[in-house]
Amino acid sequence: MKLILAVVQDQDSNRLLNALMDHNFRVTKLATTGGFLKSGNTTFIIGTEDIRVDKALQIIKDNCRSRDQLVAPVSPMGGNADSYIPYPVEVEVGGATVFVLPVEQFFQY
Amino acid sequence: MKLILAVVQDQDSNRLLNALMDHNFRVTKLATTGGFLKSGNTTFIIGTEDIRVDKALQIIKDNCRSRDQLVAPVSPMGGNADSYIPYPVEVEVGGATVFVLPVEQFFQY
Amino acid sequence: MKLILAVVQDQDSNRLLNALMDHNFRVTKLATTGGFLKSGNTTFIIGTEDIRVDKALQIIKDNCRSRDQLVAPVSPMGGNADSYIPYPVEVEVGGATVFVLPVEQFFQY
Ligand code: NI
Ligand code: NI
Ligand code: NI
Repeated sequence: MKLILAVVQDQDSNRLLNALMDHNFRVTKLATTGGFLKSGNTTFIIGTEDIRVDKALQIIKDNCRSRDQLVAPVSPMGGNADSYIPYPVEVEVGGATVFVLPVEQFFQY
Repeated sequence: MKLILAVVQDQDSNRLLNALMDHNFRVTKLATTGGFLKSGNTTFIIGTEDIRVDKALQIIKDNCRSRDQLVAPVSPMGGNADSYIPYPVEVEVGGATVFVLPVEQFFQY
Repeated sequence: MKLILAVVQDQDSNRLLNALMDHNFRVTKLATTGGFLKSGNTTFIIGTEDIRVDKALQIIKDNCRSRDQLVAPVSPMGGNADSYIPYPVEVEVGGATVFVLPVEQFFQY
């Protein structure tokens, strides 16, 4: 038995929750704030048999991996509209920080 | 020293908190949402000496065990009141998912 | 790799967060309620290499240690203002409950 603690960005958290539940993982979500990742984040606690740890890690990686995203730029306030060419901007989003902890005993009542 | 992580239903969480504090356990409550259990749930973190782990587990079991509850049925909207016999419905409530984790060091400042 | 779980008083939590981030610790904050400490509290999760555990513990101790604080007393309602001498009252604030947990695997995606 292992306990996986995964801190992910809020924008990835619903997709991750659904993917984990689709694969029958026991999962609970904690409301968290700041620190590990740049914007708002969510902490997942996943309890799993040792043999399924790699599967859970793969799902986290597939759904939360840090990646670049093209974002439409905001046009500059008060700028000269004639000379302004709006190139999309590349922003890094996502990312996950994951700890796998040993579990000594596990119970369901 | 052990850290017990217990996810329980919201409706059992106040009773559990009181029972744990009555027995002098160090406990903190995390706001959590969905997953392990059907409705809203709460995660407890309990720090305890090895020798008192079984006592904590017993208190969690006594206060949160999954059990059937009889619920008065809602009368069917637009139904025929004459032919409708309101049998109470059995619903499963409660339940706890519990992890016992090893602790390497413990401090109080 | 270790996971440090620290429960501290709300009033110390911003100072602690800043001090940990100044020293480049990976940290996330959980919203928590009651139990370990007298008033509202916050739980920090700090992931760190074994060699930096003592540094993290020192920062927690420096910023959250239990200490006495002089508080101006509220003047008694309906009291006799002539005979009332407002001595400041000593109140214990702060404190931290800290668990160091072993980590089997650590990943960043
Ligand atoms: Ni799949
Ligand atoms: Ni008792
Ligand atoms: Ni320093």
